[in-house]
Amino acid sequence: MRQVEELQKMFLSYLETESFDQPPQELYQPVNYILQLGGKRLRPVLLLMGANLFTQNFKNALPAALAIEIFHNFSLVHDDIMDKAPLRRGQPTVHIRYGQNAGILSGDVMLILTYQYLSKLSNPSQLPQILETFNRLAIEVCEGQQYDMNFETQSSVEISDYLRMIELKTSVLIAGALKIGAIIGGGGEKDATELYEFGRNVGIAFQLQDDILDTFGDPEKFGKKTGGDIVQNKKTFLLLKAMELANESEKKTLNHWINQDNGSESEKINAVTQIYKQLNVQQLATELMERYLLTAFDHLEAVGVEKSRKNILKKLANQLMMREI
Amino acid sequence: MRQVEELQKMFLSYLETESFDQPPQELYQPVNYILQLGGKRLRPVLLLMGANLFTQNFKNALPAALAIEIFHNFSLVHDDIMDKAPLRRGQPTVHIRYGQNAGILSGDVMLILTYQYLSKLSNPSQLPQILETFNRLAIEVCEGQQYDMNFETQSSVEISDYLRMIELKTSVLIAGALKIGAIIGGGGEKDATELYEFGRNVGIAFQLQDDILDTFGDPEKFGKKTGGDIVQNKKTFLLLKAMELANESEKKTLNHWINQDNGSESEKINAVTQIYKQLNVQQLATELMERYLLTAFDHLEAVGVEKSRKNILKKLANQLMMREI
Repeated sequence: MRQVEELQKMFLSYLETESFDQPPQELYQPVNYILQLGGKRLRPVLLLMGANLFTQNFKNALPAALAIEIFHNFSLVHDDIMDKAPLRRGQPTVHIRYGQNAGILSGDVMLILTYQYLSKLSNPSQLPQILETFNRLAIEVCEGQQYDMNFETQSSVEISDYLRMIELKTSVLIAGALKIGAIIGGGGEKDATELYEFGRNVGIAFQLQDDILDTFGDPEKFGKKTGGDIVQNKKTFLLLKAMELANESEKKTLNHWINQDNGSESEKINAVTQIYKQLNVQQLATELMERYLLTAFDHLEAVGVEKSRKNILKKLANQLMMREI
Repeated sequence: MRQVEELQKMFLSYLETESFDQPPQELYQPVNYILQLGGKRLRPVLLLMGANLFTQNFKNALPAALAIEIFHNFSLVHDDIMDKAPLRRGQPTVHIRYGQNAGILSGDVMLILTYQYLSKLSNPSQLPQILETFNRLAIEVCEGQQYDMNFETQSSVEISDYLRMIELKTSVLIAGALKIGAIIGGGGEKDATELYEFGRNVGIAFQLQDDILDTFGDPEKFGKKTGGDIVQNKKTFLLLKAMELANESEKKTLNHWINQDNGSESEKINAVTQIYKQLNVQQLATELMERYLLTAFDHLEAVGVEKSRKNILKKLANQLMMREI
């Protein structure tokens, strides 16, 4: 099995050969821009790993790996318009840099390019199964974004709905990347599904961890200021669980901070974090996160290939959780 | 061969069985709204006709016909956002009725639904060829929209670039609908390509006719006020040809009207139409349009099925040109 860095390099060399330098440049420049902003290239690497589990000869999975990366970036470009986000990976978002229309239309063409790259298969008989997997997850990603936007204006959100939202918005793409890789690599339906479930559960665990780190993480270690979710009143697992467990007085305090528009950010972060600590929500979140991770590893266990071949996926999942990648 | 009305009905019954009533409703309501706004259903009917040319048993082309209609409506929804259009078929556009974010995200999900319906084939081995045809045209439609937006701010546009733009934005979808129908119906590569060329040329002829009618059409007959393109300084074939042929004084007059912001609309329409008449651009446009139509019929002629089976396509093209459908 190839190592993560090796797969990242392999993917980046392929990406380099596939730059979109055709006219009209107003349409394709934003595509190149967002694809070259960097990132961990996690999804394409997972797709390649999925293929590499079943075959040494997995270079023919590179177009599908690029497809998944293009799709991920399509969703970032359109989400950034919808969320009015000014920055992405520390650089101006596409709609800020090139204008909103360019953001919409370049995103559209990226979604079509996704299908063009998914279709580049050395074994075209795999296409129906790959499209079935991909179409479903792509629709789910849109549904996840819709639920996420809905939650912003909803007064209360069930934790089960929140978990479903992060599954749709984040996990199914990670899961689908692994499954599509498995299909291309020649893995059977059962193994492909086990890998999908592994990815789905890791994805949810990862997002829960994200919620925890945003409030309780070490800024030095994670290079990110804490408290952003609290400042923005983001309905994370921590806030939803706290609302569920809070007594009348704690609920009042939480609502006070949520409803006040201008005030000291650090005061708000401290007050809300204090309640989270009283209610032990960090530990509850960690326990849930660990349950998802254990379920993930059970599914990985069930994939019918030699244990040693699967170790890299286990390692990658652990690195992801530790934010070491 | 089935008649147009019969195919429209067949398509509408299928559409009815396929309404998108699932949650989240914020995502799917706009999809149902735009699909139920009506229209001629020209593209799905053409797809069904393409299939029916080669087989009596063409019901299995219905999902692909719906795919093409969903794609067409996806492009309307996103184009309407980019063009800031308030109305579509006399009703509020999706982004006006449901908000811009709903317009973006529902459009995205429609593009994915397009692929989902394209994949519903009774013969999955046709999928690679169908996707190859569709992916190319879908990218071209985006490119056409980009060129169309570019032209708005470009000071001068070549007629050849204009013709290429209307080909991309309008014709390739009509052409591709016919070709995909032919593939599903079991037509060979050569016949499918002849049909594509038939549709491509009819599409360009149709758009040129649109330019002519917008200035010279009979408002009573076409139910549409004339002069809209002139008022908006739209770079149609008529204006571009007039700019090409105009002498200094005519050029000055045209530029005067183009550059004046407020003034009498009817005066502007009269003055520009007068120059069009002096320069005979209506006739030049008509001649060009007829050349495309003749080329279209040559390609239809070359399709290797009985003449009587092709008559309905010829008739439909003529009805389209006469705006009788």
